[in-house]
Amino acid sequence: MTAESPAGEAHPWVERHRATLLQALETIRTRAYWSPHPEHPKAYGEGAAAEGLAAFEALRGTRFDLDQPGTDAWTGGEVSPYGVELGIEYPHPDPDVLLPAMRAAAPGWRAAGAELRAAVCVEILARISARTHEFAHAVMHTSGQAFMMALQAGGPHAQDRGLEAVAYAYREQTSTVAAADWSKPQGKREPLALAKTFTPVGRGVALLIGCNTFPTWNGYPGLFASLATGNPVLVKPHPRAVLPLALTVRVARETLAEAGFDPNLVALAAELPGEGLAKTLATRPEIRIVDYTGSTEFGDWLEANACQAKVYTEKAGVNTVVVDSTDDYPGMLANLAFSLSLYSGQMCTTPQNLLVPRDGITTESGPKSYDEVVADLAAAVDRLLGDDARANALLGALVNPDVKARVEAAPGLGEVALAAREIAHPDFPAAVVRTPVVVKLDGAKPDAQAAYLSEHFGPVSFAVAVDSPDAALDLLRRTIREHGVMTVGGYTTSPEVERALEEVCFDECAQLSLNLTGGVYVNQTAAFSDFHGSGGNPAANAALCDSAFVADRFRVVEVRRQA
Amino acid sequence: MTAESPAGEAHPWVERHRATLLQALETIRTRAYWSPHPEHPKAYGEGAAAEGLAAFEALRGTRFDLDQPGTDAWTGGEVSPYGVELGIEYPHPDPDVLLPAMRAAAPGWRAAGAELRAAVCVEILARISARTHEFAHAVMHTSGQAFMMALQAGGPHAQDRGLEAVAYAYREQTSTVAAADWSKPQGKREPLALAKTFTPVGRGVALLIGCNTFPTWNGYPGLFASLATGNPVLVKPHPRAVLPLALTVRVARETLAEAGFDPNLVALAAELPGEGLAKTLATRPEIRIVDYTGSTEFGDWLEANACQAKVYTEKAGVNTVVVDSTDDYPGMLANLAFSLSLYSGQMCTTPQNLLVPRDGITTESGPKSYDEVVADLAAAVDRLLGDDARANALLGALVNPDVKARVEAAPGLGEVALAAREIAHPDFPAAVVRTPVVVKLDGAKPDAQAAYLSEHFGPVSFAVAVDSPDAALDLLRRTIREHGVMTVGGYTTSPEVERALEEVCFDECAQLSLNLTGGVYVNQTAAFSDFHGSGGNPAANAALCDSAFVADRFRVVEVRRQA
Repeated sequence: MTAESPAGEAHPWVERHRATLLQALETIRTRAYWSPHPEHPKAYGEGAAAEGLAAFEALRGTRFDLDQPGTDAWTGGEVSPYGVELGIEYPHPDPDVLLPAMRAAAPGWRAAGAELRAAVCVEILARISARTHEFAHAVMHTSGQAFMMALQAGGPHAQDRGLEAVAYAYREQTSTVAAADWSKPQGKREPLALAKTFTPVGRGVALLIGCNTFPTWNGYPGLFASLATGNPVLVKPHPRAVLPLALTVRVARETLAEAGFDPNLVALAAELPGEGLAKTLATRPEIRIVDYTGSTEFGDWLEANACQAKVYTEKAGVNTVVVDSTDDYPGMLANLAFSLSLYSGQMCTTPQNLLVPRDGITTESGPKSYDEVVADLAAAVDRLLGDDARANALLGALVNPDVKARVEAAPGLGEVALAAREIAHPDFPAAVVRTPVVVKLDGAKPDAQAAYLSEHFGPVSFAVAVDSPDAALDLLRRTIREHGVMTVGGYTTSPEVERALEEVCFDECAQLSLNLTGGVYVNQTAAFSDFHGSGGNPAANAALCDSAFVADRFRVVEVRRQA
Repeated sequence: MTAESPAGEAHPWVERHRATLLQALETIRTRAYWSPHPEHPKAYGEGAAAEGLAAFEALRGTRFDLDQPGTDAWTGGEVSPYGVELGIEYPHPDPDVLLPAMRAAAPGWRAAGAELRAAVCVEILARISARTHEFAHAVMHTSGQAFMMALQAGGPHAQDRGLEAVAYAYREQTSTVAAADWSKPQGKREPLALAKTFTPVGRGVALLIGCNTFPTWNGYPGLFASLATGNPVLVKPHPRAVLPLALTVRVARETLAEAGFDPNLVALAAELPGEGLAKTLATRPEIRIVDYTGSTEFGDWLEANACQAKVYTEKAGVNTVVVDSTDDYPGMLANLAFSLSLYSGQMCTTPQNLLVPRDGITTESGPKSYDEVVADLAAAVDRLLGDDARANALLGALVNPDVKARVEAAPGLGEVALAAREIAHPDFPAAVVRTPVVVKLDGAKPDAQAAYLSEHFGPVSFAVAVDSPDAALDLLRRTIREHGVMTVGGYTTSPEVERALEEVCFDECAQLSLNLTGGVYVNQTAAFSDFHGSGGNPAANAALCDSAFVADRFRVVEVRRQA
């Protein structure tokens, strides 16, 4: 490890973050548990909670100046799903000014080399980590996540995913030596000899298109993968979730400048109401990489139209759980109830379709009919969310009116096994909080298929009656191939069914969680160990995080000289 | 390394090829010189030359049966650029039968694991290597390469590139452990524990679209990268260069079957005259990977239309050499003369535009005017090709009438500095052999720009007069950015110009060869050490070979279980 400043001395951040980077590199290989970012709110120090809240409050009603070139307007208008108007204005860019300024920042960043770039990225993440409480409020009041989830998923878990991307980027960039002497024997003649250098260079400006529900968690992998591989990154947040990424951009710009780099390596592009800025930016010739999380419709548009760029998308899926049999019926029900409830099902990984044989399942306490399974699951959700305080802490608020509309439309799709319940939030009366709705559908009926084979993002799930375990497997295969999934769950005590589930997931390329009955849920993945999505079915063309996610964000330029 | 057969014993090929694979893995990191495939024709044993020729001759006028499912017609019609009719018929596929059969072959290949897949691929390459002389005749009589070049570039160099792809594929697939125990501490409570497995799975059927000039060299990287990562590969050769890839498919099918795998993992798709089979196949839903070498027009079409697949393309470029100054004028001229002559300039890496200051250059023997440089280069080509036997051994035959037409049109583009000379081939009178044509153009004139800023594939080069070194660098930048290059050369004794050349190549992403005056040429790259193309400019979206070339041909499916 030899990154040096122009003066010839290694930058102190390289040494400061070496152990973290090495541990991250080790863990992406072993896939063991590890995180340098604490989950417990109290781990951030005595006054951290109060300071974080105060910092968040101080931002409200202000202009969020980032001192970027080419700011031609100010825009904002975020209203928290908890009802709070943020009143913050962000810079709107003139791409003809901002993008050239970002391009001009690239050569200095390229010259820094992979190791210093990694160290600067880890320093950015460390500074974000120190402000986890502030970010938690920003995530809560843009996504609608409950505070504790906003802190964990929007803080340490997002930072983990960012660090994971930095580690992959560093590993790939350093998998080729920086310089080599090449000497090819020529029999009795002198060997042919060349001196070669290999320099990782970024592709160009990267565009990150943020999402509403997980602005940091889904944003950090692309942001840090692009930045660590030498690309300037333009961050276009979802208009309802600007603040968490604006804070991120501010920290990144400050850190880059402090290390002697051009802060325009990271910039914000907030959009005017109804502008459709992402479309404009994504097809600019300067943009060579696009990361996107959101609707299938726009993801497909990006893949078809941003042809000048490498496009990494996470879109919609129809997540499925096959329920065949279990030897821990209460554990299965509790685990599923939690998965359906967490953040009101507003996760790209939340199960939507529970495939249950119409003849019922076997359990350690005897057979259970389809109706019993569905009723017992409904009861488990009721138990989990029976206490309003606990329900509010788990559910959070519905992120936007579209989700609310889907919850309200769900009873029209079939027989309601569990009705959504309205819950009041003691601190934020404007918050729209709903418990999950579960609808029974007959898997074989065409009109039911139309309902359950499209994504109903939010707390809407279907108990789909199927003819047999084989029918469940066939339906699973069709769902993955035609509609995509981010997650597949399975409950079975049969080795044959387990093996068949695996084979379907291998064939159709989907991540599988089997017999989860404890404190790990199908909709949660841990950085450094779990892959988020497979990148091989229609729900996403990339996985978080793997070599493929970083390896094509840079190219290696070889210079060879007569030796 | 633990690949096991169903019976629990490691396959003997794993052990047999372990040292080769390990050395390949080491060399793709160190980029030192290495090859397990000898270049010298005599290295293949006493009778190899005669046996190879006899094997080739025995194929002529036969039906090349591969025992593939879904063969609905036989097609052929290859005529050697040396005038020989091959008279071989190949199977034409019904994709509705062949593609499902190939898909059905995938699960067994997936279950073999990365190590056994690599060993089988290395065994295929070893068997091809043993038949290098036979392949040499096949490549010669489809590409028009002279015999020695066909043997080396179509044999060991192509096999090297295939092995390189196998090494990258193995490295990427094994960069994640196969299984992990994950345990997350929960304070005083029991840790959360999961058992996880990670299985590399192929994306689906891969399509290799071969080219006319280097059927094996340009075909093997994609073929072996896809196969080693678990994908069945359908090989669609260029209709004028079927035999080298048909032989490859035959060896692959025999080897796969011998190892107990379904031979339909590799199949041939020869096309009927004018059928346009590549378009039909490339957009089939079963095809998830496409590798292509050829025209920019069809490469762009594939990138825009084969949206269901990952598409790796090598297209046309306008390769450029900046001539600023040299301290070895004769060495520079000799090196350039060879580069322009080798295989009649029919390499994607042959320099086309030589940018020379109109005020001339400095050399160790004093200043040379633009006219002197061009005249001296023309004389160097004449010297190199003055002897007809040597010329035939270097030039080979023009691959098709389009190249001949370009050679004949070149004098109309500007002042001819070196005219193409017709050379008779003593053994093959029908061969069309031409020495290179060099045309002088004024870099600043718009009509000249129209000529030199498009690719003239074949032995056509331009001595482009530019105002200054800076003008040369500007033109180089514009050429790379707008038209793409596979190679850039530079001759300079100025550290400033050298640094500026590097920066242009870093900015625009191009591979740079500096001051080559000996036996290495700008149009040659060595596997395991040199990258072929950068994948970052319009000439190609991929480089041979790097992580990005293999990492997205497979996905990792994780199965996690409650521990």
